[in-house]
Amino acid sequence: MPRNVLFIMADQLRRDHLGCYGHPWLRTPHIDALARRGVRFEQAHVNSGVCGPSRMSYYTGRYPSSHGATWNRVPLSIGELTLGDYLRGADRRVVLAGKSHVIPDREGLARLQLDGGSELAALLERGGFEEIDRYDGHHTPGAESGYPAFLRSHGYAGADPWSDHVISAVDANGQIVSGWHMRNVHLPARVREEHSETAYMTDQAMRFMSRVGDEPWVLHLSYVKPHWPYMAPAPYHALYTPDQCLPVLRTQAELRDAHPVLAAYRESEESRSFSMDECVRTVRPAYQGLIHQLDDHLGRLFEHMDRLGVLDDTLIVFTADHGDFLGDHWLGEKELFYDMVQRVPLIVVDPSPAADATRGSVDPRFVESVDIVPTVLEALGIERPAHRLEGESLLPLLHGGTPAWRDSVYSELDYSFKQARLRLGKSPQNARAWSLRTARWRYVYWLDEPEQLYDLQSDPDEMHDLGRDAGTLTRRIELRTQLFDWLARRKRRTTVSDAVVERGTHAHKRAGVYFGQW
Amino acid sequence: MPRNVLFIMADQLRRDHLGCYGHPWLRTPHIDALARRGVRFEQAHVNSGVCGPSRMSYYTGRYPSSHGATWNRVPLSIGELTLGDYLRGADRRVVLAGKSHVIPDREGLARLQLDGGSELAALLERGGFEEIDRYDGHHTPGAESGYPAFLRSHGYAGADPWSDHVISAVDANGQIVSGWHMRNVHLPARVREEHSETAYMTDQAMRFMSRVGDEPWVLHLSYVKPHWPYMAPAPYHALYTPDQCLPVLRTQAELRDAHPVLAAYRESEESRSFSMDECVRTVRPAYQGLIHQLDDHLGRLFEHMDRLGVLDDTLIVFTADHGDFLGDHWLGEKELFYDMVQRVPLIVVDPSPAADATRGSVDPRFVESVDIVPTVLEALGIERPAHRLEGESLLPLLHGGTPAWRDSVYSELDYSFKQARLRLGKSPQNARAWSLRTARWRYVYWLDEPEQLYDLQSDPDEMHDLGRDAGTLTRRIELRTQLFDWLARRKRRTTVSDAVVERGTHAHKRAGVYFGQW
Repeated sequence: MPRNVLFIMADQLRRDHLGCYGHPWLRTPHIDALARRGVRFEQAHVNSGVCGPSRMSYYTGRYPSSHGATWNRVPLSIGELTLGDYLRGADRRVVLAGKSHVIPDREGLARLQLDGGSELAALLERGGFEEIDRYDGHHTPGAESGYPAFLRSHGYAGADPWSDHVISAVDANGQIVSGWHMRNVHLPARVREEHSETAYMTDQAMRFMSRVGDEPWVLHLSYVKPHWPYMAPAPYHALYTPDQCLPVLRTQAELRDAHPVLAAYRESEESRSFSMDECVRTVRPAYQGLIHQLDDHLGRLFEHMDRLGVLDDTLIVFTADHGDFLGDHWLGEKELFYDMVQRVPLIVVDPSPAADATRGSVDPRFVESVDIVPTVLEALGIERPAHRLEGESLLPLLHGGTPAWRDSVYSELDYSFKQARLRLGKSPQNARAWSLRTARWRYVYWLDEPEQLYDLQSDPDEMHDLGRDAGTLTRRIELRTQLFDWLARRKRRTTVSDAVVERGTHAHKRAGVYFGQW
Repeated sequence: MPRNVLFIMADQLRRDHLGCYGHPWLRTPHIDALARRGVRFEQAHVNSGVCGPSRMSYYTGRYPSSHGATWNRVPLSIGELTLGDYLRGADRRVVLAGKSHVIPDREGLARLQLDGGSELAALLERGGFEEIDRYDGHHTPGAESGYPAFLRSHGYAGADPWSDHVISAVDANGQIVSGWHMRNVHLPARVREEHSETAYMTDQAMRFMSRVGDEPWVLHLSYVKPHWPYMAPAPYHALYTPDQCLPVLRTQAELRDAHPVLAAYRESEESRSFSMDECVRTVRPAYQGLIHQLDDHLGRLFEHMDRLGVLDDTLIVFTADHGDFLGDHWLGEKELFYDMVQRVPLIVVDPSPAADATRGSVDPRFVESVDIVPTVLEALGIERPAHRLEGESLLPLLHGGTPAWRDSVYSELDYSFKQARLRLGKSPQNARAWSLRTARWRYVYWLDEPEQLYDLQSDPDEMHDLGRDAGTLTRRIELRTQLFDWLARRKRRTTVSDAVVERGTHAHKRAGVYFGQW
């Protein structure tokens, strides 16, 4: 059994932007080496293409429809249990360095009079994580992170050193310009590489590992990069040319008779920006630089772990919360149901001898974010409550097993908070969608909007939406029924375990109740 | 605005077992008079045919898939808000006399360190009710009810006066026999009528009303009858002959090629008992006697309210948590999706002048258990949180309005705790079903079992299951899609209100986040 767990998450990292996942130019030798030490999953999919709900699925082992935190600004209900809760029940703690995106359920805490600042309340507010350094990124860091003080101590003065330095640059005219304007991200950030966000959080993780000594640990190291602002520090800003980036994937045909929700997303500022080739050619090299930098720091981290002697004692999970369109399909950002957003890198290294047979292998099976909590729990020998957890442990797969396994993955979208909802004149209650992805099909059910359907066999790039073709009706009905059946099986009976149900089945006479007797 | 709310529930009361709902022999003059003072709903349906989940839908305004308490032994999560929570937010309390069937979420309370016996914990354990006298029935009453002491004070001696007197009788041989054996329920209970459960709980309600004086109140008066044990005190045990009961509704054809779940339910003891005509002819008169008795006590209660001067100040809801097969369809008990279980009486009297136009009318629109919380909240002028509540206020209907209204009702079943699950060899995770009922169709989707479909136009008694007929495929697909769409709309994003979503829509720049800018 592994002593420790290192759960690494990158933010907005596309699966195809890693060497081991086939990027022809981007060099990620340390992540590639990690894949050689473990299993690289070819078909790992998130359960939402949005940071918050995707992460809550990673942390609860439950789909967004079940955990309820369906978008970034939606608190995780205090009724939902997270990895931290499950580990705490086994006298283990899970510490966080970096981003969690957990929004406290203040209304729920107040209702239960848990707003008094107790240790329990603090944990509940943080989604069960003990925070070494919480830093959610793309905001001026707050008091929960030491990063602003770190920046100041290294001479980055001012009220907001993050905005002024980390995401700013100096242009050819000597003007300070902001990385919020993507036209500037070919420039190097006004921060030394070793003081950048990725370096800082790696340092936090390394110090934590040194500090804890022999005590077993579970660390969620959660980087805020390569998420926007896409500004990279030197030398990473200039490591790649536009010609060393993947070609943008979009056709004029996609814009004709587009699905109403896609059309609405394409009208948003990020999509309009990324529809310009110049934007794509400016951002993609910087995005690749940020990934290259991340890889370098992971190399530094793994070397540190090796020195501490914990590398062969630690279950390592490396993944991302979702990808990034970067102009593909005439879209910026994420959220929607396309593989470059929904399909993520996932590498798992189980140090136990049982996993030796699969080291360096590529697993083609469908896995999902909800599988991480069950995997960690099983790896640590902690009970997995089947009445709550909706994912499956990956351990049997890592150990060379061939259990009965899913043939489809599911993802959800709540776009209530998006401008696209306003453009479509919808209410906060009917801006939702569910996607079913099999080896052959991508099917999407939208509330009050047409279905989407892509035949991934003839159309692997998801260019031709067959959702409104009369000829696909039978297929859509079949997939719709499969999606319905999945939704019907969501685990909403969370207050009793299956074992309690088994014990309580047909038990009325044992309870002194004798109905139905003649 | 009404000062008070009286929410009366009968347990296991069939809609067709009231005079005003057309029973040809059963006399319920006081309930009929109530219907003349208000609106009688022709198509009132529960959201589950089982006490616990049905009641939790009445108390939370949410469907079982949303509130999660899917069967009798499943605690209501402390994360769910009830009528009591909503009223408390408006400085009102809701008191309970009788049955609530709320099971405390002890695991949830312990996790949040709310098991210390605080006033809050007590309310959470009781589903938000302040209990005057909690009595869930069909068990020996516990310390939460004064009924055992009341019985003893009236001379019913022994360790268990309920079992020995209230549900026992003396047979022709002078032997004491139990009402748990349905063969005995033609006999009078060994309790005087004025000491029976229905009399006792009516007294509790009357005393409460006298005691509170001018303070406005919300009272849930929740009778445990006519639920089994079906033993009625004299003279009610003998008011009706078998010939004054509704004919049993069942055909031999139903038993041929029956749906697997129905077949499994029919093998249970209660169904086997009720498949005997003798059982039907013994139980139905007693069941009618218990209803007649309930009506008499409601007459006493309404007279008391009139004397106190609160009758014209009080919103009155009268309904049931579900019906009873009583042998129909070769079944005993309830749970399954047939009208005699799912369709219940519902009478609402709104004392306000706005409701004068509808007094004595019959409303044919589809209403559901989840509508009660929104109705009570609107009647009392309390905000209805649309992001949690899944029902609609009936007030517009009571006031003669014709708002856009639903054309279907939904009900759910979790039979994990039932012997039928064991007979079918299923797990606690796939013993579930969902029913959609329109004016024309009853459609049921079962996990891993065939669909059911009844054409209520040609088959109002639901005798011919068309769910496996190839000829109904198109119709089933249409209804299945409608059911899926309904399930997809369940309100799972409960930690933010719609107003917060509206304010937070497309708000990133206001929050200092400028992604997507070129």
